[in-house]
Amino acid sequence: MDRLAFYRSLSMPSDQRILFMVLDGLGGLPHSDTGLTELESANTPTLDELVAGGECGLTVPVLPGVTPGSGPAHIALFGYDPVENQVGRGVLAALGVDFDLRPGDVAARINFCTLDDDGNVVDRRAGRIDDLLAVPLTERLDAIDLGEGVECRVRHVKQYRACVILRGDDLDGRIADTDPQRTGVPPLAPRALTDAAGPTADLAARFVDAARHALTDQDVANGVLLRGFDGFRPLPSFADLYGLRAAAVASYPMYLGVARLAGMSEHRADDSPDGLVAMVESVADCDFVFLHYKATDSRGEDGDHEGKVAEIEKADALLARLRASFDVIMVTGDHSTPARMRSHSWHPVPLLIHSALARSTERSFGERACAQGSLGQVRSVDILPLVLAHAGRLRKFGA
Amino acid sequence: MDRLAFYRSLSMPSDQRILFMVLDGLGGLPHSDTGLTELESANTPTLDELVAGGECGLTVPVLPGVTPGSGPAHIALFGYDPVENQVGRGVLAALGVDFDLRPGDVAARINFCTLDDDGNVVDRRAGRIDDLLAVPLTERLDAIDLGEGVECRVRHVKQYRACVILRGDDLDGRIADTDPQRTGVPPLAPRALTDAAGPTADLAARFVDAARHALTDQDVANGVLLRGFDGFRPLPSFADLYGLRAAAVASYPMYLGVARLAGMSEHRADDSPDGLVAMVESVADCDFVFLHYKATDSRGEDGDHEGKVAEIEKADALLARLRASFDVIMVTGDHSTPARMRSHSWHPVPLLIHSALARSTERSFGERACAQGSLGQVRSVDILPLVLAHAGRLRKFGA
Repeated sequence: MDRLAFYRSLSMPSDQRILFMVLDGLGGLPHSDTGLTELESANTPTLDELVAGGECGLTVPVLPGVTPGSGPAHIALFGYDPVENQVGRGVLAALGVDFDLRPGDVAARINFCTLDDDGNVVDRRAGRIDDLLAVPLTERLDAIDLGEGVECRVRHVKQYRACVILRGDDLDGRIADTDPQRTGVPPLAPRALTDAAGPTADLAARFVDAARHALTDQDVANGVLLRGFDGFRPLPSFADLYGLRAAAVASYPMYLGVARLAGMSEHRADDSPDGLVAMVESVADCDFVFLHYKATDSRGEDGDHEGKVAEIEKADALLARLRASFDVIMVTGDHSTPARMRSHSWHPVPLLIHSALARSTERSFGERACAQGSLGQVRSVDILPLVLAHAGRLRKFGA
Repeated sequence: MDRLAFYRSLSMPSDQRILFMVLDGLGGLPHSDTGLTELESANTPTLDELVAGGECGLTVPVLPGVTPGSGPAHIALFGYDPVENQVGRGVLAALGVDFDLRPGDVAARINFCTLDDDGNVVDRRAGRIDDLLAVPLTERLDAIDLGEGVECRVRHVKQYRACVILRGDDLDGRIADTDPQRTGVPPLAPRALTDAAGPTADLAARFVDAARHALTDQDVANGVLLRGFDGFRPLPSFADLYGLRAAAVASYPMYLGVARLAGMSEHRADDSPDGLVAMVESVADCDFVFLHYKATDSRGEDGDHEGKVAEIEKADALLARLRASFDVIMVTGDHSTPARMRSHSWHPVPLLIHSALARSTERSFGERACAQGSLGQVRSVDILPLVLAHAGRLRKFGA
């Protein structure tokens, strides 16, 4: 029996409410002046109180040494194996612009590019054109009609990036990238990686031709490169696996989109603490609330140690307003984003599970304190079952 | 190569004796008055001495968040994957009443039930009849002759519960429960879950009819419901895998029965410390002794924190009398049974391995101390190989 089927076989109802709070990019590295990480520097009275009645540990998002993107990092947090359940960039891009993907849709990332008269790639990013130019060009591509009962939608993402979604019968996303990864050569033809994907690869080739036509009056953005083809396959839902009414609250569509893969209802909040609190309060009928807090990661990516400290403190204040409504509270990050690195990293991430059934040991919430925590080092995929156990949602296995 | 075959390929002889002591339900939760768990409260001079020359850690019995029953918990301690090697309730019940199961036997749990004149279930537990009534009715069922060279044995378990064992050629236990899980409807017919189980399902149906006949003069316990069919499949034995002469010493038949799955010899002791010590001394020719201590779990199930503390202290005194006869001593629980929860739980369990080759670090034996232990967090299935290594029973892998 596979792991999810096993947990499904043990799930049972409970009236305990779970808050599953993800501070994006929470983990960090010590600042050279203070020797303290962002989290260790932050003044977090609420988290410290929750720690005193909770258990701590460190999570490994995917596998040791692996730096995850937001997609696999959240898929792991939601309890799915992130290596077995890889989601293509095309699908993540479409989810990220709030496109209403349906099972069977195939999506790919688009890069606008510059081609010379011989059709060779001159610039793989079309001079990094800005949104002002890219949006109307995207609209031209969205008007392409591939016929044959296939719907073709194109949405702008950012600058020279867009995405295309194909909807029709028997589509298959196992298609290789058309980006040749260098200049001076033509784009590759969309190539099916399996026989079943042949017709979809033909459709993609017709889309590339039609795009070339639609952009023929352009000097810079006169071609497209396609990457990250994938079909949209929802995962077994939280409702089906655990009987959970699960809600996702986030200010960025991408995270709501990943939560949609798990069958959570989506609740987009504005970026303010008040907006997030109001949205969490609006889903009082749900017994599982995934709350995503974005700005910790953004300040990490900016290399802004102090700014990340400030965002952690804001998240702590947010938690103070929410905690009374929940019986079990989990706080972690999807990955580390040390300000010193200005990027995601592989470093394990602080984890806190607060419930009436915790063996509390720690005194504060931080990377080094969590390394001594009673939960030890935990894979991200194992967090959800632990949280379900604390909420009384897993029955005894065997006699 | 699978995991067991790999360890088997590395096993080699040694004259070091191993004591594998399981304090049932050892793990606990802090008491609200003292902030200490049962084990942390107990005065355990012997365990503390063993810790000083040993290594500690915490074990995860099955998977994170999973609360195991005694069967899977012991199967894991004996080094077998507890999810891959699930044992049906019928087999565990038969082992629990000390029935001499043989490979190929099929066993099922029986609930006496009350049927109305139309054959519909009125009470799924026959008014929870007591042993006094149930024992003679069980004897009636034991007298049923199914013919066709099939032996049919019925044994009483407790109150309205019994078990039936079928012995014959080509039996197959993949049969669905007959318990409809509600009243007002007739029992389900025994249904084969695979073609190979068809003839066994027919036998089970004939047993149900014969039972109805045998109980026809009864008002309350006038029918039977069958649950947890399974065939008895011994696991690869300790002798075959590791060349161990392994003995099991316990006062409850159920634990001896699970040990029989692993091919250990069975030695039932009375419930006193003297009885357990004498039985362990009687197997001086065995190089592996599994010693099961039941009362820690019983007091946990009672919600008796102080009683569980006292039982841990008794087990500690027992260990003082035994330790000189062994080179490697392992002490853990099969699972946690926090008195606060009055039930098994998923919480990791304290683990101690004492040998001349330990990297000792800890000062005392308790949940929080073990969380800091040098063994870290260990799955229960990995304990046995560690113990074998400490006893010099695993050769070098590769050159």
